[in-house]
Amino acid sequence: MTRGHDRTMKVTYQFCCIAPLQHHGLGQSAGSKAKSCRVVRRVTVPPVSGDKAHFRSRARRGSLRANHPRRSRRLRPLCRLCPGLSKVFVLQTPYYLIDKTRLLPNLEKIAYLRDASGAKCLLALKCFAAWSVFDFMSDYMDGSTSSSLYEVRLGHEKFPGETHAYSVAYADHEIDQVLECSDKIIFNSIGQLTKFNAVSAGHIRGLRVNPGVSTSEFDLADPARPFSRLGEHDPAAIAGIADQISGLMFHNNCENDSFARFDEMLTLIEDRFGETLHKMDWISLGGGIHFTGEGYPLDQLAARLKGFAATYGVQVYLEPGEAAITGAATLEVTVLDTMHNGKNLAIVDSSVEAHMLDLLIYRESAKMTPDAGDHEWMICGKSCLAGDIFGEFRFPAPLQAGDRLSFQDAAGYTIVKKNWFNGVKMPGIAIRELDGTIRLVRDFGYDDFAAALS
Amino acid sequence: MTRGHDRTMKVTYQFCCIAPLQHHGLGQSAGSKAKSCRVVRRVTVPPVSGDKAHFRSRARRGSLRANHPRRSRRLRPLCRLCPGLSKVFVLQTPYYLIDKTRLLPNLEKIAYLRDASGAKCLLALKCFAAWSVFDFMSDYMDGSTSSSLYEVRLGHEKFPGETHAYSVAYADHEIDQVLECSDKIIFNSIGQLTKFNAVSAGHIRGLRVNPGVSTSEFDLADPARPFSRLGEHDPAAIAGIADQISGLMFHNNCENDSFARFDEMLTLIEDRFGETLHKMDWISLGGGIHFTGEGYPLDQLAARLKGFAATYGVQVYLEPGEAAITGAATLEVTVLDTMHNGKNLAIVDSSVEAHMLDLLIYRESAKMTPDAGDHEWMICGKSCLAGDIFGEFRFPAPLQAGDRLSFQDAAGYTIVKKNWFNGVKMPGIAIRELDGTIRLVRDFGYDDFAAALS
Repeated sequence: MTRGHDRTMKVTYQFCCIAPLQHHGLGQSAGSKAKSCRVVRRVTVPPVSGDKAHFRSRARRGSLRANHPRRSRRLRPLCRLCPGLSKVFVLQTPYYLIDKTRLLPNLEKIAYLRDASGAKCLLALKCFAAWSVFDFMSDYMDGSTSSSLYEVRLGHEKFPGETHAYSVAYADHEIDQVLECSDKIIFNSIGQLTKFNAVSAGHIRGLRVNPGVSTSEFDLADPARPFSRLGEHDPAAIAGIADQISGLMFHNNCENDSFARFDEMLTLIEDRFGETLHKMDWISLGGGIHFTGEGYPLDQLAARLKGFAATYGVQVYLEPGEAAITGAATLEVTVLDTMHNGKNLAIVDSSVEAHMLDLLIYRESAKMTPDAGDHEWMICGKSCLAGDIFGEFRFPAPLQAGDRLSFQDAAGYTIVKKNWFNGVKMPGIAIRELDGTIRLVRDFGYDDFAAALS
Repeated sequence: MTRGHDRTMKVTYQFCCIAPLQHHGLGQSAGSKAKSCRVVRRVTVPPVSGDKAHFRSRARRGSLRANHPRRSRRLRPLCRLCPGLSKVFVLQTPYYLIDKTRLLPNLEKIAYLRDASGAKCLLALKCFAAWSVFDFMSDYMDGSTSSSLYEVRLGHEKFPGETHAYSVAYADHEIDQVLECSDKIIFNSIGQLTKFNAVSAGHIRGLRVNPGVSTSEFDLADPARPFSRLGEHDPAAIAGIADQISGLMFHNNCENDSFARFDEMLTLIEDRFGETLHKMDWISLGGGIHFTGEGYPLDQLAARLKGFAATYGVQVYLEPGEAAITGAATLEVTVLDTMHNGKNLAIVDSSVEAHMLDLLIYRESAKMTPDAGDHEWMICGKSCLAGDIFGEFRFPAPLQAGDRLSFQDAAGYTIVKKNWFNGVKMPGIAIRELDGTIRLVRDFGYDDFAAALS
């Protein structure tokens, strides 16, 4: 294939190559923010030999392999950007690419908020649990919170700081380890609190409270939906066990980017549960507050949280999931085939159902930027599912097999839900460091697939 | 907990204990079909010592452990049925229980059909890929078919007989291994056939054809939906490459339990693609024909397939997925907590999204039989998702923590899609042999969860 060699294409090294882009003579310095170009084609670039960055990258990967025998899959010695350069390795798509430069702005806002408000911020592992970046995140956050035994143990082992345990329900055989791994335990029901009263007596304990209102646009994700099992509702019942706990957890925001709406709901909580709030030492206000979004009035939120903490004499906790990792990862894929059936169709080496499940569950489209140009294409997954479609996007030129695409905003509720449907290769997990180097921290192969069955 | 000890409850040993039920003195002989009782409570049963079945079970498990170091999780030495009998082990819920006695009637119908029609039947691994029962299934089927490199390799390594390779699209680096692992390769597009023409020249090759009509009730699963990427549509284009292939694959049925509808669609295929059919050696009619269902006119189907094969001089293939495994497995769970919030809510140690994903995707309810009694309960998963609900069912008595429940018909599109959402423990995979013994062939633990991330 020589097609495309003479073209001038915008390329972004993070999408294909471990070495910094400057190595390719394409003019972008390492560590700077990547351009939002999705299509990487072969371009004519003069080979560069003896570059130190290459050898550094290789040495780093070499040691990674030695320490992690399961990650021994050899990277392919082929670089689409540098056909003549055999020392550059290309990551095989599909893979999730977690970009610390994109993660950082969220983390800095979290750190700002906690400094300004006094609230502590815990990462919600249900949304994002790629533990290779936990150390990095822990410089800006206070710890992690969980939805199960395995999550609390992961937080305990991998995320420095506080570890909160919560689950809709714990099993008898889980409770000892949950207590061992957590600083606080938050029960979902008075029934669970009562059941585990004796065993948890020496632990800091809380209860999830359902205030009966939420900001979710999806009934499926609405914790305040009719007949919800998520938390206790009755103020009197909750007041009745207040002496057994020292904190409450409210989690009724969901992708809420309106401070006014948050404020209104917090007031409702104060009105309804104020008496019990005064008896508590700490209150978790859960996740779903989109305070890292562009233009969110962080100072207003900080003041509101600070005032709330002072009024009730409590330590406030927030449990950001999406807010912590919005835009921080892409799903990197390659076009395998194109077809034309009333529309232009491009089939990529990934699958919505297997790798970005929420798009299917909530019937939403993936994100691709800049999404502009004269050519509209439907991007389809490679599973057998007829509706395995990432969405329809615009491109400056027709797509063809071999083109690289990047689905944006692929960090939250994706890696934690990936599955082996159709035996489609599970995306590896790669991390782009602040200095621009990319390292593969996990790859999945046939043995993982076979072992997931029996 | 002594509650329930004095009650007389219908119990079914398959739901809790490795040893045959007769061991418990409950009157049901080993190997007979299990009663459809879902609730297993502690009952007063005299301990039986020195039972040979126990020691056989233990020996069998012992050797399993020795051969499979990853399956070394110790079963809990507690039997709810036999409080006094320490030698009986209870499988920890959640687990999928594949029941060969329930699988067998489907397989016998498949074998009948292939004998009567001359058609060969290949298991569709996309639906069910629990390879521990492949040997058993292969006595009644001719092989397996696939949707990806990993599936075709699994079929090649684990399912005796023919192995068909199909995928919506293969990557360049996959094709060699796909060819190595398959007897036939079916390309999804003329583009892929052309791309891999040289490398696949010595292989038996086919093309997927999309006849433009289907029986799917769900747009999401409809291969004939507008702009479908699943197969080639144009009779002239297909005729144009007919000399490069020896077979065609049509897959446009979907849970089709009507022979008349199948017949009608096959006639449409003949009308539209008849000329090319005559040039082929084999035709796959795909899956989705629910011919193992109660009352399906198997002989009519067999006659139609036999006539079709004779008319065009082809070997016919069917690719049953659901038809092969309908009703063959249950998902075994335990109630962890109960709540009352306008309805009776029971929370179990499983999750729709993580363990029976299609219920969520297609907004359907799980199945529970007999689903009768005065007490209606909503059965909820333990993930954080508000809509993690298995369904509402009727029971003869109020549920309580510790009750065992079995979701029916849990073999298809469940085990192959399970995922680690919320870190909810992934269900183990157990097999109930024809003699009534149950063996755990795969369990999942924290290490699997952590290794699925990075």
